[in-house]
Amino acid sequence: MDTALVVLSGGQDSTTCLYWALRRFGTGNVAAVTFDYGQRHRIELACAARVAMQAGVPHTVLPINTFAALGGSALTDLDITVQPGMNAGTQLPNTFVPGRNLIFLTFAAALAYQRAIHHVVTGVAQTDYSGYPDCRQATLQALEQALQLGMDYDLTLHTPLMFKSKAETVLMARDLGALPALADTHTCYQGQRPPCGECPACVLRAKGFAEAGIPDPLVERFREHSP
Amino acid sequence: MDTALVVLSGGQDSTTCLYWALRRFGTGNVAAVTFDYGQRHRIELACAARVAMQAGVPHTVLPINTFAALGGSALTDLDITVQPGMNAGTQLPNTFVPGRNLIFLTFAAALAYQRAIHHVVTGVAQTDYSGYPDCRQATLQALEQALQLGMDYDLTLHTPLMFKSKAETVLMARDLGALPALADTHTCYQGQRPPCGECPACVLRAKGFAEAGIPDPLVERFREHSP
Repeated sequence: MDTALVVLSGGQDSTTCLYWALRRFGTGNVAAVTFDYGQRHRIELACAARVAMQAGVPHTVLPINTFAALGGSALTDLDITVQPGMNAGTQLPNTFVPGRNLIFLTFAAALAYQRAIHHVVTGVAQTDYSGYPDCRQATLQALEQALQLGMDYDLTLHTPLMFKSKAETVLMARDLGALPALADTHTCYQGQRPPCGECPACVLRAKGFAEAGIPDPLVERFREHSP
Repeated sequence: MDTALVVLSGGQDSTTCLYWALRRFGTGNVAAVTFDYGQRHRIELACAARVAMQAGVPHTVLPINTFAALGGSALTDLDITVQPGMNAGTQLPNTFVPGRNLIFLTFAAALAYQRAIHHVVTGVAQTDYSGYPDCRQATLQALEQALQLGMDYDLTLHTPLMFKSKAETVLMARDLGALPALADTHTCYQGQRPPCGECPACVLRAKGFAEAGIPDPLVERFREHSP
């Protein structure tokens, strides 16, 4: 029986991928890994743990202290403010951590290798890729080859959301029964819960749910609890 | 003027590559990076720092705490004994850390990106590659492509030793004036200084110097100091 390892960030996309993997590989054949890389929003780690627990999936948290040592990104460096739009010099958002997904997937592959798992699942998408070149199909294909050759191991990188819009991903989550789990996910770049609703990540998420014609379970949860 | 970043482990091969880079890119255009990944032989870090200092090259040490968390390799896990030969199951040495060079080179590329450096140099060689698939030319080519695409950045991975035997590497070190620096390098898998002379790494190193007809400066240094 094939088994799969899902890279679970605690966000909407990777949570949807977890449910995709449960459907594709079957309950009991899926594990999840989350990276604690010094992200400024520690709530992502709690969300990932809760999503994995609710899904009944074994969950490994691996530390990566290297990005913080590298510095220079708003995602890990608390001295840098998250800026909307692109950095003028690099034409990339200042939340860009160079090579972040390459590192995540390589460590996920190493964990998969150790556990004789041959399928790694990631929620990257090039449709709404926000300027991140390490989320593109061509990058993932080159990386898959590097991992196969570098570990001398049969490994497939699955990217079920690669060509989906946010709205299509929402519909996919609905079809997979993943909507309740999305109430436990975190998206807001400001780290707020309830989400700020104004940062680029919140706006993109809201747009996806709106276009799919489905209320965001995360927003609904806080609406229920407000006076 | 092109600049280069050398992945410096503190061993013979990466030290030779540092001098290759100094010749190729010029003094003042070379930097070095060493990874503190929990290697059992901490002396490698001291060797790398000394080699960089003697060469007058700025030196960055980046921590990686992930391999130790992954566990399972004799190189980082002190509970595992280094075994000569191959693991029967994987046909790889039990010092194999899956994806280690992929991770090193990806973090090196991230550091290069931040510093606007477009050349990364590594001492991997497939000639004497000891069973490590992440040292092969095909792996490095695939990784170079993944890095270029994933960072949207013009980056060249240089592997000046890829097809050289250990003896050829020794001759190259001599021609580059790197022999004195090799006295500061560390090779022994047992972590001993003077080197044990019996582990596979020491034997391979000694064979290279013997075939090149050149005394190993490291061995010579300890011979001078012994009674």
